[in-house]
Amino acid sequence: MAVRIAVDAMGGDFAPQAIVQGVALAASQYSDIEVLLVGDEKCIESSLASEAADFDRSRITIIHTEEVIPMAAAPVEALRKYKKSSMARMAALCKEGEADAMISAGNTGAFAAVAQLTLRPLPQVKRPGIAVTIPSFYGPFVLCDVGANIQAKPQHLHEYAIMAGVFAERLLDIEKPRVALISTGEERGKGTGLIKQTYELLSQDASLNFIGNAEGRELFEDRCDVAICDGFVGNIILKFVEGLAEGFVRTIKREVEDEPEEIRGKFLSAIDRVWARHDYSRYGGAPLLGINGVCIICHGRSNRYAISNAIGVAKRFVERDINGALVSRLAQAN
Amino acid sequence: MAVRIAVDAMGGDFAPQAIVQGVALAASQYSDIEVLLVGDEKCIESSLASEAADFDRSRITIIHTEEVIPMAAAPVEALRKYKKSSMARMAALCKEGEADAMISAGNTGAFAAVAQLTLRPLPQVKRPGIAVTIPSFYGPFVLCDVGANIQAKPQHLHEYAIMAGVFAERLLDIEKPRVALISTGEERGKGTGLIKQTYELLSQDASLNFIGNAEGRELFEDRCDVAICDGFVGNIILKFVEGLAEGFVRTIKREVEDEPEEIRGKFLSAIDRVWARHDYSRYGGAPLLGINGVCIICHGRSNRYAISNAIGVAKRFVERDINGALVSRLAQAN
Repeated sequence: MAVRIAVDAMGGDFAPQAIVQGVALAASQYSDIEVLLVGDEKCIESSLASEAADFDRSRITIIHTEEVIPMAAAPVEALRKYKKSSMARMAALCKEGEADAMISAGNTGAFAAVAQLTLRPLPQVKRPGIAVTIPSFYGPFVLCDVGANIQAKPQHLHEYAIMAGVFAERLLDIEKPRVALISTGEERGKGTGLIKQTYELLSQDASLNFIGNAEGRELFEDRCDVAICDGFVGNIILKFVEGLAEGFVRTIKREVEDEPEEIRGKFLSAIDRVWARHDYSRYGGAPLLGINGVCIICHGRSNRYAISNAIGVAKRFVERDINGALVSRLAQAN
Repeated sequence: MAVRIAVDAMGGDFAPQAIVQGVALAASQYSDIEVLLVGDEKCIESSLASEAADFDRSRITIIHTEEVIPMAAAPVEALRKYKKSSMARMAALCKEGEADAMISAGNTGAFAAVAQLTLRPLPQVKRPGIAVTIPSFYGPFVLCDVGANIQAKPQHLHEYAIMAGVFAERLLDIEKPRVALISTGEERGKGTGLIKQTYELLSQDASLNFIGNAEGRELFEDRCDVAICDGFVGNIILKFVEGLAEGFVRTIKREVEDEPEEIRGKFLSAIDRVWARHDYSRYGGAPLLGINGVCIICHGRSNRYAISNAIGVAKRFVERDINGALVSRLAQAN
């Protein structure tokens, strides 16, 4: 049976065009999906009409909504004010069993809030967390949480370790993922009170392949597959990594501006290849783990490839029954 | 009068060789310094003897110490155990007025602890903080604190804003430095309780050019000159930035491995130029701000250039009387 995926046509810096393009791309890539494109019907129709590439239009259903949650709106307030938004509609579709998953590149806080309020957390989950897959130099690692829960407690970080571990295993096919806790030093006892208490919880959980604390540099040296932190730290790290990576690429490109055309072309293509492999935003699709449903969050600047990838993540998340695995693993741990 | 700078010959991954080389370099660069090289006399003598470059040996005095604090030792324990260490001796030299500043690339925690215990904080400073100058793509910005105080309170962050602002103004010659608070969003009200309370304190301080919250990416887009955070977040950011930057350079170099020699050479030299400008460890010399003395912390992997730069920072810190400026600015704020 086809996986039914609701996609927010109105969310993201390049919506609806990039979203619709991504959906069209996914519709030609995957034979076993159905997409519910949620948003302003006229906008969506015109974006679909201008899409040059061949795609299977019959896999796409438009669901009209009137309202859009602004990117900068405060989450809970936004939900109260925009009850007829594309996000609210997607969550309702998931709740009523008419969609298996939902995806948005819109206001992350509002999307996480609507998911939690409408779909509710899984049994035993106190605080859902966002898991981003970061393409490192030796393969990807999963960073969780990157912003759903900025005032975390040790038991929340323990939940993230379990859930992000299951995600890495089931969705990224990493066997016995190595789980690390982000801190200011490798030694037990380094870090804040939150980190020290979490260290103890993770050490005592035999179901985890916990390797201890990790510092930032180690994440780029293939020391772990899953890195756990609170949402405040994770969100800041993510944006730092983004700013630095982009700045580097820009600067290196400028550095070779005066080279002859032929050499410059080679430089730029080498840099573009590296950038394509390491730009996490192109990977698209960070699940909000711990929700009783499938909620995939995309970067605001998502392009068609990010959206198409996110649809792939949603599809695998459903097919591989990650939530079933989460529930049984959490039950074991408790 | 020459500035007298005590340098820990024994601290750092490449000590004593890189330290001694850096001291020799500084002794030929600056005409108005005297260096007290503190550590094992025989080791230092042999490193000095093997130094090929010309330098003014008369500016360097060796002060023999027997003990070395190991890089991984827990700070307070290390101080208790190694009372005759090079670090303890440097702090004593500063306290007794025989040195104007001290520099170490050794165990950061132990160095910060010995500075606080021996020299004590400046009046009105509750918690000293480490300020690192990060070479961004549009010029440097100052990040404070990067690890001296990992459980910060709002008033500590307020102190860091004032002190790092003075440092940016006086030492980096940035007029009215723009001060930002690192958070998960620009809007007032984004972030943890600590951030929200700090935001209020900084807004109310008219002596600061406070521009509000900043996310990680904005720090690389010339939005601020000074970025404030607690030591846990700052330390993690610093190590992430380091790991990512190094990984990027490695990966890009690998990407052009198969190009013809001539093209590869050009490419590698372009990358090395960018790297040289952006590798903060080469800049060397992060002050522990708020100490009643001048304490300059170097990266463990400091090479001769980092050490020589740190000596330059120490010299300017003393000459421009940064501590005098800190005391008067803090008094104004309180």
